[in-house]
Amino acid sequence: MDKAQGNNLDPWYSHYAERTAGLSASEVRALFAVASRPEVVSLAGGMPFVSALPQELVLTAVERTVRDHGAVALQYGSGQGSPRLREQILEVMALEGIHAGVDDVVVTTGSQHALELVSKLFLDPGDVVIAEGPSYVTALVVFRSFQADVAHVEMDELGLVPQSLRDTIARLREQGRTIKFLYTIPSFQNPMGVTLSWERRMEVLEIARENDILVVEDNPYGLLYFDQAPPQAMRSVDEDGVIYLGTFSKTLAPGLRVGWAVAPHAIREKLILANEAAVLSPSSFAQTVISEYLSTADWKGQINTFRDVYRERRDAMLGALNEQLPTLSWTVPNGGFYIWLTLPNNMDSKAMLPRAVKELVAYTPGTAFFADGNGRNAMRLSFCYPSPDFIREGIRRLAIVINGEMSLLTEFSQTAPLAVQPTRREGVLPPSVG
Amino acid sequence: MDKAQGNNLDPWYSHYAERTAGLSASEVRALFAVASRPEVVSLAGGMPFVSALPQELVLTAVERTVRDHGAVALQYGSGQGSPRLREQILEVMALEGIHAGVDDVVVTTGSQHALELVSKLFLDPGDVVIAEGPSYVTALVVFRSFQADVAHVEMDELGLVPQSLRDTIARLREQGRTIKFLYTIPSFQNPMGVTLSWERRMEVLEIARENDILVVEDNPYGLLYFDQAPPQAMRSVDEDGVIYLGTFSKTLAPGLRVGWAVAPHAIREKLILANEAAVLSPSSFAQTVISEYLSTADWKGQINTFRDVYRERRDAMLGALNEQLPTLSWTVPNGGFYIWLTLPNNMDSKAMLPRAVKELVAYTPGTAFFADGNGRNAMRLSFCYPSPDFIREGIRRLAIVINGEMSLLTEFSQTAPLAVQPTRREGVLPPSVG
Repeated sequence: MDKAQGNNLDPWYSHYAERTAGLSASEVRALFAVASRPEVVSLAGGMPFVSALPQELVLTAVERTVRDHGAVALQYGSGQGSPRLREQILEVMALEGIHAGVDDVVVTTGSQHALELVSKLFLDPGDVVIAEGPSYVTALVVFRSFQADVAHVEMDELGLVPQSLRDTIARLREQGRTIKFLYTIPSFQNPMGVTLSWERRMEVLEIARENDILVVEDNPYGLLYFDQAPPQAMRSVDEDGVIYLGTFSKTLAPGLRVGWAVAPHAIREKLILANEAAVLSPSSFAQTVISEYLSTADWKGQINTFRDVYRERRDAMLGALNEQLPTLSWTVPNGGFYIWLTLPNNMDSKAMLPRAVKELVAYTPGTAFFADGNGRNAMRLSFCYPSPDFIREGIRRLAIVINGEMSLLTEFSQTAPLAVQPTRREGVLPPSVG
Repeated sequence: MDKAQGNNLDPWYSHYAERTAGLSASEVRALFAVASRPEVVSLAGGMPFVSALPQELVLTAVERTVRDHGAVALQYGSGQGSPRLREQILEVMALEGIHAGVDDVVVTTGSQHALELVSKLFLDPGDVVIAEGPSYVTALVVFRSFQADVAHVEMDELGLVPQSLRDTIARLREQGRTIKFLYTIPSFQNPMGVTLSWERRMEVLEIARENDILVVEDNPYGLLYFDQAPPQAMRSVDEDGVIYLGTFSKTLAPGLRVGWAVAPHAIREKLILANEAAVLSPSSFAQTVISEYLSTADWKGQINTFRDVYRERRDAMLGALNEQLPTLSWTVPNGGFYIWLTLPNNMDSKAMLPRAVKELVAYTPGTAFFADGNGRNAMRLSFCYPSPDFIREGIRRLAIVINGEMSLLTEFSQTAPLAVQPTRREGVLPPSVG
């Protein structure tokens, strides 16, 4: 090890672990900076609308935390999380059909940290994680940060396609690859917004069992349904093969950073050790605030309030898409935060983003959600944060950019052939707006 | 990968990453359970005495957080931490001679998480971390969890011995080992309580520079001095070769889980990415509470209060040791939480622990602080949490156990030789108390 192996920008370059090479800024990351400018309508981020949470409810919880539980809330706690909160988490999970014991739960620093810890426990360099294609950006970042590869399975409007899962497993096994787990967001998936049907949940579990593959079920949005509840969690019928991840980030507030994992016994014991190594214990203060909130506020009523807020925003977005971009196709989510918009096949949403930002609207390019470069002609639109009026304005601006782009491409393809022609066309191109 | 490779207790046994084999429960961990029984005087843990923090100060901070900053405090934040808190952290660090910019700071979930992230960034399997011998238990756990080995350097009453550091580096280099960093707690070291002198700080930095070794300076206790301030932080004179770790856990409260790292530019950028992968962002709520506390409370006065509390407790422990165990030797800390007690060479503090717990006193056996089995005849005594009266009672109980043990060993060695004789004796054995 010698500094000569470093470079001008980083004298410690040669000292990093191999895994650090895989740690790069996500495409979504740069967008947060852009989206924070007030004149931009951001349909890019995944920030919950925390202003729908009445201040008084939070105030009561924090005051009781300090007054009645100060000595405990300010102190180090258990690496597994507080027994009281874990008991309350059982009530939350019961709403999605999960029956577990208080010892089965491990509280983490948001469910993101549960995902990091599970990855640390399971992933060796060169291992494979199977994930939906597209999948949650920062899950892909975590898997890559432990030098694992991601193999995507196909999605349709009923969630991941079981036959594609079978095919992917067979292909990977043939290649001699080691599959460590299937990462899935069955309800109101990020970024597609689609929900895995009950029949498919059963089929996916069966495939996982047959192939000795662990299932990591990430469920941040399950309680935020609009019309009818999603099918029960996969963990509700399989406690030996599923690691379930939950969070208070969407039903309460992400600023507290409290999530949890439910895992088979031996895995859970290792999760606790990994949690202790990483943070000693999750925040006692945040846990106590949430315990007080859950015991004093009508938290189920508050979830209904969030559902009403997000339903109205989804409807605003769907209405605007129908009106502004009628020739394109998109998913129709029954819950959660996201719509997945598909552009004509020859369009590149990432290349188009600077023009969108110039038009004062932001989205997340589809490629961010794939480990393999797919998703070029798609984008994720979030309806969670902006008001319905801003959503409509955002889609109006987006339509100007998309229609402008389509008209340019049409004109260009009529006058001079593109070096690389699109392989197929989807839908009908709208008339030029320029 | 086949379930047949698993075992009865854990069907997923064969699926874990290799690093998970190194993740085991620390010796200190089991003690937390023991120490929590109210009848036991625990001199084992490292819990700060948070009751010395006036409730009103915390209440004001949390109320202002919810009332004036609710929408921000409840939301996701920056992966680097809030600019306001980072600005305030600069003021805290200035007290120890550190001059840095607001961009140099990365807020983490306690400084423990900074240590985890630094380890994730730098440690490949088989790498070596050099650490004081003894060193902080959960640092050793983290290094091992990334499959690194720990090489200890010798300590004396002025901190780590520079010549031992030189020798250790030379030996490791000869063996072809890759040294990634030196982990050190220069002020009021955990577990020894000793402080690295200014001359040695300069010498250690010089050795590190010569050998192209990064220094990780962990400084949780620096502001908690009793008589005079420790030498300035090593980071105060070397911004290119030092990653500095700080925390609010000891000067405010560990339950908030807020610490920070200051690192050279390129490393810091990677730390932010690793932080985002692990937790998306550190808790906005906890950060805002601390910002409000720092801007409304007399936080320097509060640190003085903590210093007074801990000084009185240290004095109580030193007095009781002088009175009850005059033939033994121990360190005399000028700050922090810990005293390191050395027993006669033929004694085993870990083997003695069950007898101590039976006598209703707990401590941490010395072996917990070594990666190589050393420390058998030593123990860490914490004076941070129990009141002076409890400390005196704890030492009285401990003296009964130690004196009983010594008398047994003396008697036994006079009547029948031990299978394994101690190689040397330190100090004079006291008369039997039984």
